[in-house]
Amino acid sequence: MSKTIVMTAPITGELADLADFTCSLATTAASVTRSYFRKPIDVIQKMDKSPVTIADRECEARIREMITERYPGHGILGEEHGFEGAELSDIWVIDPIDGTKSFISGLPLYGTLLAYTRGNDVCIGAISMPELDEFWIGVRGEGCFFNGAPCRTSGCQSLEEAILMTTSVEYFSPENRDKYAALREKSRIRRYGGDCYIYAMVASGWADLAVETGLQTYDYMALVPVIEEAGGFITDWSGNRPDLNSDGTIVAAATKELHQQALEILGR
Amino acid sequence: MSKTIVMTAPITGELADLADFTCSLATTAASVTRSYFRKPIDVIQKMDKSPVTIADRECEARIREMITERYPGHGILGEEHGFEGAELSDIWVIDPIDGTKSFISGLPLYGTLLAYTRGNDVCIGAISMPELDEFWIGVRGEGCFFNGAPCRTSGCQSLEEAILMTTSVEYFSPENRDKYAALREKSRIRRYGGDCYIYAMVASGWADLAVETGLQTYDYMALVPVIEEAGGFITDWSGNRPDLNSDGTIVAAATKELHQQALEILGR
Repeated sequence: MSKTIVMTAPITGELADLADFTCSLATTAASVTRSYFRKPIDVIQKMDKSPVTIADRECEARIREMITERYPGHGILGEEHGFEGAELSDIWVIDPIDGTKSFISGLPLYGTLLAYTRGNDVCIGAISMPELDEFWIGVRGEGCFFNGAPCRTSGCQSLEEAILMTTSVEYFSPENRDKYAALREKSRIRRYGGDCYIYAMVASGWADLAVETGLQTYDYMALVPVIEEAGGFITDWSGNRPDLNSDGTIVAAATKELHQQALEILGR
Repeated sequence: MSKTIVMTAPITGELADLADFTCSLATTAASVTRSYFRKPIDVIQKMDKSPVTIADRECEARIREMITERYPGHGILGEEHGFEGAELSDIWVIDPIDGTKSFISGLPLYGTLLAYTRGNDVCIGAISMPELDEFWIGVRGEGCFFNGAPCRTSGCQSLEEAILMTTSVEYFSPENRDKYAALREKSRIRRYGGDCYIYAMVASGWADLAVETGLQTYDYMALVPVIEEAGGFITDWSGNRPDLNSDGTIVAAATKELHQQALEILGR
């Protein structure tokens, strides 16, 4: 895609300044991650053995600096540097590189996730795909925008017609793998890989259903306004709207009807 | 990636004209598929239930016209329109859209595969990723090129260090799924999705090992020169170099040592 990435949220309401700032965070983050992508770098193994790169840490540090300077009264929860200001009302939740395995495998499917929450209610979420020049932002009450243009989920109301996405069945527990298998059997098409990108596909109406488990707060918070403001439904596998303390199961669907059908299988 | 796709094979040997022609086929194919990507189109269900789009058929028809005009004495094997001139020595093997499920799901990971074979010996292979502006071409004795620059596989010689890719475990038979599971257990990192793109990752040294089964001739022929000319090894799961009549199992590795370790598990 040889177009230039359009990181804007064309809105004018109360959240406009925060949304514009979210876009500037994404722009800075992209400049950091792109400078390391497909370059030979040291891959550090964290205690939990998940791969994480120098790019990840540097990117989050830059984002934190920008937030602290602009909004010193806001808290920050990030993957690499922990939770600062957890007692505050306004919290930013950031994942500098969602899809680190893709990043270190040369796949341009890693993303940067940014969310702004107020009183544990997520109001702004952004999915930025630096290598693909693609950017989604959902702003409470204002809609969801893909590269600056409004986007909508598909009208798919039936599991039998649905394009289903997940990152990898490896991430499911045996019990959840069985639930996923039951869902898969009824769906029309499955695709794997993608991490946060699969939710962007649902927001733009190209895929219909995305399910995962084992997500951390910084993995899922940004997805919520993107899906909701595009007209879709997103909850944990018990049917609750995700917040800072959710269990990390996620089901995002194009329509309420499809979401309900998926929940009936996943929520057993 | 906001760069412009570079579909060239900077070579001067006996295969230069054929390689240049392969690049022009890829350029034309990209113009067709890109015009349909993420557009609302009818999705036709073939007899075997695999999804295939209007873009697929139109793209292959255009490629066949170009080959027939330029090389009327050559045969053509394609996914959509069958095998013409199977008795001839020079055969083109084409898959207009490898990854049709990605295509109809809005994922920019579909590719166009082009191969030129002489006497059942594949001499030129190209992997074109129209939405990513990325193009790989391998030419017998001349090397493999990524967007016009030489590319090499990684030096990974150990399964324990390897980044392993496959499109989906759904495509494996129960027996082959067990073999894959044994391979997965020993590898360092797994990634899913991708179709032909996973072999491009191996050719460029970002991933180390790619395994699949159930591929058709048009799915794997183009991969062979790409992997071999990048310095890697590619065979079926029995260790034979793929030709027009292979069984559709594929294992592609960065080095001979890694390939051997994978074969010991997959070839049991």
